[in-house]
Amino acid sequence: MVAPRNPLNLGAAARAMSNFGFLHLRVVNPYHIAFREARSAVGASAVLINAEEYRSVAEAVADCELVVGTTAVGHRELHHPLHRLEGGARQLRSGLKGGRVALLFGTEKFGLSNQDMSHCHWLIRIATREAHISMNLGQAVAVCLYELTRDPKAGPRVAKTKAASAREVERMTGLLFDALQLSGYVNPRAVPATEEKLRRLLRRMKLEPKDAQLWQGMLRQVVWKLRSEKT
Amino acid sequence: MVAPRNPLNLGAAARAMSNFGFLHLRVVNPYHIAFREARSAVGASAVLINAEEYRSVAEAVADCELVVGTTAVGHRELHHPLHRLEGGARQLRSGLKGGRVALLFGTEKFGLSNQDMSHCHWLIRIATREAHISMNLGQAVAVCLYELTRDPKAGPRVAKTKAASAREVERMTGLLFDALQLSGYVNPRAVPATEEKLRRLLRRMKLEPKDAQLWQGMLRQVVWKLRSEKT
Repeated sequence: MVAPRNPLNLGAAARAMSNFGFLHLRVVNPYHIAFREARSAVGASAVLINAEEYRSVAEAVADCELVVGTTAVGHRELHHPLHRLEGGARQLRSGLKGGRVALLFGTEKFGLSNQDMSHCHWLIRIATREAHISMNLGQAVAVCLYELTRDPKAGPRVAKTKAASAREVERMTGLLFDALQLSGYVNPRAVPATEEKLRRLLRRMKLEPKDAQLWQGMLRQVVWKLRSEKT
Repeated sequence: MVAPRNPLNLGAAARAMSNFGFLHLRVVNPYHIAFREARSAVGASAVLINAEEYRSVAEAVADCELVVGTTAVGHRELHHPLHRLEGGARQLRSGLKGGRVALLFGTEKFGLSNQDMSHCHWLIRIATREAHISMNLGQAVAVCLYELTRDPKAGPRVAKTKAASAREVERMTGLLFDALQLSGYVNPRAVPATEEKLRRLLRRMKLEPKDAQLWQGMLRQVVWKLRSEKT
């Protein structure tokens, strides 16, 4: 959960997690009073009490191989593939067989920011009525987790290839960004936009772990060379 | 909803109904302060404002042809057929084609009483973890209504992405090789082997045409920079 503000929503999300057997909650930049309040509430679930706190999405998803964001699809233009929950869940389940999967929920009012989304491989949405698309956060969490545990035998098996962890991909993103900045590719006014663009690009590539390593080695060398010639 | 006590749960249930397109809420014997509070809350949905109040389950379901109760299956012995939500929803949907259907939710602490259940044709339960079966009321409503509107055919979108042409990928390979050679990454004795390695790497990435273009632009800049610093 990214930047949740309402302790009741935090509690509700943790409760749904506990109901459906998802026991690892990571909270990014919570509104601190809310986090403390939710944790100390009577009947707070073990999920909430054991929740881990992170300062950035990048840190929170570092050891995950698949990162999927949730969105109500508001006004924003999306740069990511978007699946309905029914179909996305199938892919999420097969991802879970291969390794750690993160499912991101944004803040109550605005959902995930573009910056948050740039850490995602793709997005899911819950199909709601056109006239009222925005769901309560705790309810959206419950619905997503229900779908994930629903009828586990259904769905075709998808070939399992191991994917590089988010940490590896993020490292590669950083190195690529450095190389491009040292080369003068990056417009200084568009630093965050460029970073987001690169993040999406590299996530579309669905790198295997060894390829992510290979890329890092190459980019490290390029960066080193660009730096050494500067001095 | 039978005898709800918490205005937040009433509000949440009504919101989920509105999200999923179920616009007729009937409330039996609500705790009055809760009902008033929920209705007058800022942002109360039309569903809640138009909710009808009844004094008994019998009156509330009088015009319905199918009445289905929800339960977490606690300690009570059930005298009714019990279906998992996934299967029950199918029957509910076909019931909806024939006439009015009522889905009953009990009070927060104890659920539906035996008396309430006696008005039901059968019951459904949401499959939850053995160790934590009791769901939050608003979340249980959201999950049930999601299942009712769930599109069984909404499989994963088969990603028909265009792939970059071999020509594009080969150009990118050439540029990457140049960048690496200029950086000192390439062992002069292993030039062909490195080229082959890069070719395989880039083909594993299954690049889309626009991404291949993007990579070429970036690499061209890096190569230009590395060359310009050499002279």
